[in-house]
Amino acid sequence: MFQFRLDATQGAARAGTLTLPHGPVKTPAFMPVGTHGVVRGLGAQDVSRTGAQIILGNTYHLHLRPGEDVIRDMGGLNRFTTWSRPMLTDSGGFQVFSLEGLRRVGEDGVEFQSHVDGTYRTLTPERAMEIQWALGADVAMAFDHVVPGQAPHELAREGMERTLRWLDRCKGRHGELADAQSGGRTVRRQTIWPIIQGGTHDDLRRQSLEGTLEREPALPPGTPRYLMGVGFPADLLEGIARGIDLFDCVAATRNGRHGTAWLPTGRINVRGAALKGSTEPLDAECDCETCTTYPRGYLRHLFVVEDMLGLRLISLHNIRFLVRLGEQARAHILAGTFDGWSREWLRRHYARGT
Amino acid sequence: MFQFRLDATQGAARAGTLTLPHGPVKTPAFMPVGTHGVVRGLGAQDVSRTGAQIILGNTYHLHLRPGEDVIRDMGGLNRFTTWSRPMLTDSGGFQVFSLEGLRRVGEDGVEFQSHVDGTYRTLTPERAMEIQWALGADVAMAFDHVVPGQAPHELAREGMERTLRWLDRCKGRHGELADAQSGGRTVRRQTIWPIIQGGTHDDLRRQSLEGTLEREPALPPGTPRYLMGVGFPADLLEGIARGIDLFDCVAATRNGRHGTAWLPTGRINVRGAALKGSTEPLDAECDCETCTTYPRGYLRHLFVVEDMLGLRLISLHNIRFLVRLGEQARAHILAGTFDGWSREWLRRHYARGT
Repeated sequence: MFQFRLDATQGAARAGTLTLPHGPVKTPAFMPVGTHGVVRGLGAQDVSRTGAQIILGNTYHLHLRPGEDVIRDMGGLNRFTTWSRPMLTDSGGFQVFSLEGLRRVGEDGVEFQSHVDGTYRTLTPERAMEIQWALGADVAMAFDHVVPGQAPHELAREGMERTLRWLDRCKGRHGELADAQSGGRTVRRQTIWPIIQGGTHDDLRRQSLEGTLEREPALPPGTPRYLMGVGFPADLLEGIARGIDLFDCVAATRNGRHGTAWLPTGRINVRGAALKGSTEPLDAECDCETCTTYPRGYLRHLFVVEDMLGLRLISLHNIRFLVRLGEQARAHILAGTFDGWSREWLRRHYARGT
Repeated sequence: MFQFRLDATQGAARAGTLTLPHGPVKTPAFMPVGTHGVVRGLGAQDVSRTGAQIILGNTYHLHLRPGEDVIRDMGGLNRFTTWSRPMLTDSGGFQVFSLEGLRRVGEDGVEFQSHVDGTYRTLTPERAMEIQWALGADVAMAFDHVVPGQAPHELAREGMERTLRWLDRCKGRHGELADAQSGGRTVRRQTIWPIIQGGTHDDLRRQSLEGTLEREPALPPGTPRYLMGVGFPADLLEGIARGIDLFDCVAATRNGRHGTAWLPTGRINVRGAALKGSTEPLDAECDCETCTTYPRGYLRHLFVVEDMLGLRLISLHNIRFLVRLGEQARAHILAGTFDGWSREWLRRHYARGT
């Protein structure tokens, strides 16, 4: 289960405290993505040093490798990854709906072909709950029918309505698992979070929200709002301004692996010739290991000679950059200065036109 | 310059203290290889945590990228890499003599073709000294004519005699650089170490040693002995038993990247099915970050999903394994128990026939 307390608001922007079995998450917050139970190239201790409070694990990938039974038998995702703070697992819905040509969608669920070994498998609301229960994260996401972001009204309606029907099945199966467990020696406190669908259509999103609230009478007041798969630095500020509490995105690590680092003044390609020989830090305002230790000229050199340390160090910086952006936004919401600060932050970030 | 003090001996095995401008090195000691100014995938802080006391940099690679001038202008190899302890650079000899088809050898030096951009370059004893002076490591190695390990007597003699002639030129140029420097504001204390050649021919190695000693009247008593490019765990113990003080080898990191971890009981392929789901540490006797943090089942998973964190963690363990082997050998030499301990260590390491 979870608690969520609103600490302060400024307009639509909110600062809150989400309390999960493995500890608190001060919001707004960026959540790094640990696709395979690992934030690409980074150990749990590394991620911990970025100030990240919660990691996302991917149910689809962990189901295929090593399999949820292996993780359950090793003591759950936290023990497996050695990450001691909260974890959240997605439902696998986004991944299986992204497997173009590898899937068949019906009311029961989705048949898909593993990208690893080609075997056919079926993911249903019930199976998604069973897998996530075995993984043992603090938060399990409901299994939803994902439609493309720009889906037409009819397709978006179909996905939205099916997502509501599937939410009933998710709740049913999750309740059975929790009841069976409480008869045994351990009571786990995993909670499921519903997902609002409806694409970009306001009427559908409102119906999705109403339908979800009808099914969730016990939701705490000031329910946390998690915008899945977002985003870039500016997206965080825009989302926070609209009342979002939690974000996840692979852009921090993916950009990092490609040598793109985020800076307060935009972004920079670490391979760029301008960095050659530079003894300056990557981002003089940043307190991450990369920026407080290594000169720009060395970071560039790591990419030139293709040493994986470079990917790691830029990923670390980018994660810290987003985590710190959440921390700064929270401080400004608490101080009542969020609007002016975020406007100035965005102006400076876009000044170079990137 | 350097000092070397013998702390204890047991038979031919020696425990010593080598003092270099950036600090002491307790011997016998394993020196990790930082080919491009980085121990593959590891930052200076990571290497520091393995207990390594000195890192090797490759002159050939650093000359090509980023170039010795860039490193000099950034303040030298230590500033460039952020490694605060001693460094040693090889002369580039081994690399250019290994470039089959890309080189032309004469008395003046070696013309070779860059493996990076195809440009033709010449490395001479003088140039090797100039490059290493610019890199600014504590120890520069003399530029030697390297012959294959199994070279016949005639070729080994040619390489040995040329190495002695080149040593004169190395000393001459290194002295000029030091004199020019001492007229300026900084006096750097880099020293050059000669290299004994002669392949596997005892008579030639003896002549190489005698010729070297004639040219090095100021060598401290109990000169340190550095066996270049060695080795695997058992090679360290065999070398130490014969009086070697310092070792370097890429096997620790290369094996690590391929998923082979060294254990007291031999070695293990981390991808092996036997590790699946295991909550045991990789090496229960090891105090490295990998062994004290991550379960075997997670390490295997990292290799299965091809996350670079796995390469990093096994490299870290393998380096710590060799560094610790040096520490243990030193302790046993000081205690007078080296012979029995090393015999038992080798017996156990080879018990499984690997």
